[in-house]
Amino acid sequence: MNASEFRRRGKEMVDYVANYMEGIEGRQVYPDVEPGYLRPLIPAAAPQEPDTFEDIINDVEKIIMPGAASPACTELETVMMDWLGKMLELPKAFLNEKAGEGGGVIQGSASEATLVALLAARTKVIHRLQAASPELTQAAIMEKLVAYSSDQAHSSVERAGLIGGVKLKAIPSDGNFAMRASALQEALERDKAAGLIPFFTAPCTGTVPALEVCGEPWSLSSWHGSWWGRQMVATLGTTTCCSFDNLLEVGPICNKEDIWLHVDAAYAGSAFICPEFRHLLNGVEFADSFNFNPHKWLLVNFDCSAMWVKKRTDLTGAFRLDPTYLKHSHQDSGLITDYRHWQIPLGRRFRSLKMWFVFRMYGVKGLQAYIRKHVQLSHEFESLVRQDPRFEICVEVILGLVCFRLKGSNKVNEALLQRINSAKKIHLVPCHLRDKFVLRFAICSRTVESAHVQRAWEHIKELAADVLRAERE
Amino acid sequence: MNASEFRRRGKEMVDYVANYMEGIEGRQVYPDVEPGYLRPLIPAAAPQEPDTFEDIINDVEKIIMPGAASPACTELETVMMDWLGKMLELPKAFLNEKAGEGGGVIQGSASEATLVALLAARTKVIHRLQAASPELTQAAIMEKLVAYSSDQAHSSVERAGLIGGVKLKAIPSDGNFAMRASALQEALERDKAAGLIPFFTAPCTGTVPALEVCGEPWSLSSWHGSWWGRQMVATLGTTTCCSFDNLLEVGPICNKEDIWLHVDAAYAGSAFICPEFRHLLNGVEFADSFNFNPHKWLLVNFDCSAMWVKKRTDLTGAFRLDPTYLKHSHQDSGLITDYRHWQIPLGRRFRSLKMWFVFRMYGVKGLQAYIRKHVQLSHEFESLVRQDPRFEICVEVILGLVCFRLKGSNKVNEALLQRINSAKKIHLVPCHLRDKFVLRFAICSRTVESAHVQRAWEHIKELAADVLRAERE
Repeated sequence: MNASEFRRRGKEMVDYVANYMEGIEGRQVYPDVEPGYLRPLIPAAAPQEPDTFEDIINDVEKIIMPGAASPACTELETVMMDWLGKMLELPKAFLNEKAGEGGGVIQGSASEATLVALLAARTKVIHRLQAASPELTQAAIMEKLVAYSSDQAHSSVERAGLIGGVKLKAIPSDGNFAMRASALQEALERDKAAGLIPFFTAPCTGTVPALEVCGEPWSLSSWHGSWWGRQMVATLGTTTCCSFDNLLEVGPICNKEDIWLHVDAAYAGSAFICPEFRHLLNGVEFADSFNFNPHKWLLVNFDCSAMWVKKRTDLTGAFRLDPTYLKHSHQDSGLITDYRHWQIPLGRRFRSLKMWFVFRMYGVKGLQAYIRKHVQLSHEFESLVRQDPRFEICVEVILGLVCFRLKGSNKVNEALLQRINSAKKIHLVPCHLRDKFVLRFAICSRTVESAHVQRAWEHIKELAADVLRAERE
Repeated sequence: MNASEFRRRGKEMVDYVANYMEGIEGRQVYPDVEPGYLRPLIPAAAPQEPDTFEDIINDVEKIIMPGAASPACTELETVMMDWLGKMLELPKAFLNEKAGEGGGVIQGSASEATLVALLAARTKVIHRLQAASPELTQAAIMEKLVAYSSDQAHSSVERAGLIGGVKLKAIPSDGNFAMRASALQEALERDKAAGLIPFFTAPCTGTVPALEVCGEPWSLSSWHGSWWGRQMVATLGTTTCCSFDNLLEVGPICNKEDIWLHVDAAYAGSAFICPEFRHLLNGVEFADSFNFNPHKWLLVNFDCSAMWVKKRTDLTGAFRLDPTYLKHSHQDSGLITDYRHWQIPLGRRFRSLKMWFVFRMYGVKGLQAYIRKHVQLSHEFESLVRQDPRFEICVEVILGLVCFRLKGSNKVNEALLQRINSAKKIHLVPCHLRDKFVLRFAICSRTVESAHVQRAWEHIKELAADVLRAERE
């Protein structure tokens, strides 16, 4: 939607809200619908081609309004999570439809999803061990629990361990910054021999933490997505390089050892809607839970972190406080979903509306085209860097992130970054890969074009020349 | 703002956003401002009288835009939490201004605030005990920790204990459903004698949980606030009756025993901006943390849960993972606030903008008038109930909630509720007070008027007559 259509549609929406407020006394205070009313009213999968804005807004009045805030808010979320799961070709076990045991939920951030998964895993292992040895106290078990992540993982995994009151260990990654079977197996054997209880592993498939500036992680990146639309070159990342842990190796080990496997693809997950990138998610079939952030790269505004579990009773078991007096026959049938048992807060917003609008206005093909354009632009930047013998590419470019640097000392790269960010035409955030100081160029705006990439590269080259000249003097 | 002004201003805002998108290439990618730039640009307290919409929107361009998403998002939040704290006459120790040790933060829900407080308290007591006895393990301490709440408290306190891996005990409330000193003291003595470690108390001063229908707590009540604007009689509550624990008794005990005191006034907190209700918060000076939900009764849209702490390093100590390598001189000075260390998720939205707009568009006097009107309407309903000898009032009416019932059996009241909710003209949610089934009438809409209260009462009386007639037959 361009600015001129936005003006028109935005004003129509303002009138829609005002009409609603003026006519509210004519509406019923409580909906007539029955649980499960919504799913039959909408398609089973996202449209391939875009729908018109008219179609969507008419459906709001026809499908959402009669279901009011509740149950429409819950039911649209369940169906949208199925739509998105199908776009990613997630194994059927993660979907809610056909009243299976799995399902999806919108969390606020990937760090919440990781915490929720860890708490579910903690409850599950405590119940399992207490069933076998009723004399074990919760504290005695918790003291021995160990969770694992890659040494390249986002700090939110460590934080989840801290909140959950369990040990977290970092598994050394390989030369491609990926967690491998051998390193994990080694840690497991060592820890089990020491009497510890491995219970949770959180490998990642392209998390790429966002900017951390002035104490506001994510916010800048999300604002860059929605506000600084055409400035195009905000970077993502602080400590990682969009590496992919080897799920096909790590997964079977976790399944064999009865360790909860939570896969975090916060950034890269959006790309898996394209068949040519889907192989990066191979191995997700071994996972107990999976999440990524449509707010990072799928045009859904912050916040919207999509999380799926294979067995939703695992999640609800960790939070539910009404196991007896509120039990009802529909509870785990899929007809009624109590999302408050799937998350940390009790309150919820109607975030699935954002997904519904975006998926329909772009269509799957439009979203795929958007991802492909970003990947193509990052390769365009990569090839500009490779053509300049003063620079090097530091990690294979797979999606929208290019890790690069001047050949030479960390000092000269620090000086270059300093000049780039002081000029304020583009903004980059660096990372350390092993001992190297690395610059990162990320494609992450809705309206970025080749001309922006070219202009950014010219600008970087110019400042690099200044830095190298200053160094020689 | 009425519907016709909303049409005008809403459309101006659509144009503002579209202009921004069209002109974005002319803007700088990164702000020029220095940390702390925002506070001097705006008043130290909320205005008493309303500002005009023009004034506010001009300030967005002048004050927010130059500070971009960050640091404006952080700095406006800090100042708005000070504004709100002053409106409530919170003790100065909770405010951030003058670089004290306290400060406020926006959480998503009261349940998150409770969890964050409990985790902070847990970390603090573990550190204290380990400092005295370095041989103690975290697990050994956690096994003995006990948190306390009133038996009338919201289930989120119990849930926080579950997530935090500590015991939670309910203190029996008195005849007015309030937690008292004697009951708390008794529990403390008994538990200490048993070798346990009391570390956290969460009394409440009017939490009033929202509707829990079809698995969507809060959402309906928040939507009732913003969507079902004139339908007026959605009820609040499941288990409580807006009772007030006795902070003046409980507070000194907690301070003496070094127990973290977290005060939750989720619903009632908004009323404390009126001097005549402020006494209900007396004793907050003993608290370590305090929170309430402006999204419940202060015209700020969901979500916005306001939380303050006396010592912000207590919070950040529970979550921060960069104690050494990211330490900088401004860290605890109040110049730079790293809100990601104050909460469960790492990501944040710009929620303080909602507070800024609401506080300025109403002015403190307008907000006070809004609270007073609701309280007056609930007393109007109370007096209608009292005039009808078939009915009784079950709890003293203090704010916007009226707990009432037909004199007689629970069965007849259940039948009445069933008729009310089937008619769908108004919607009530019941509660149990001790063994009595009680109906609750809550005033919670922006546009509710006396006529709505009268109409609702006529409707209830009519259905009550039907129920009583059916019972006699």
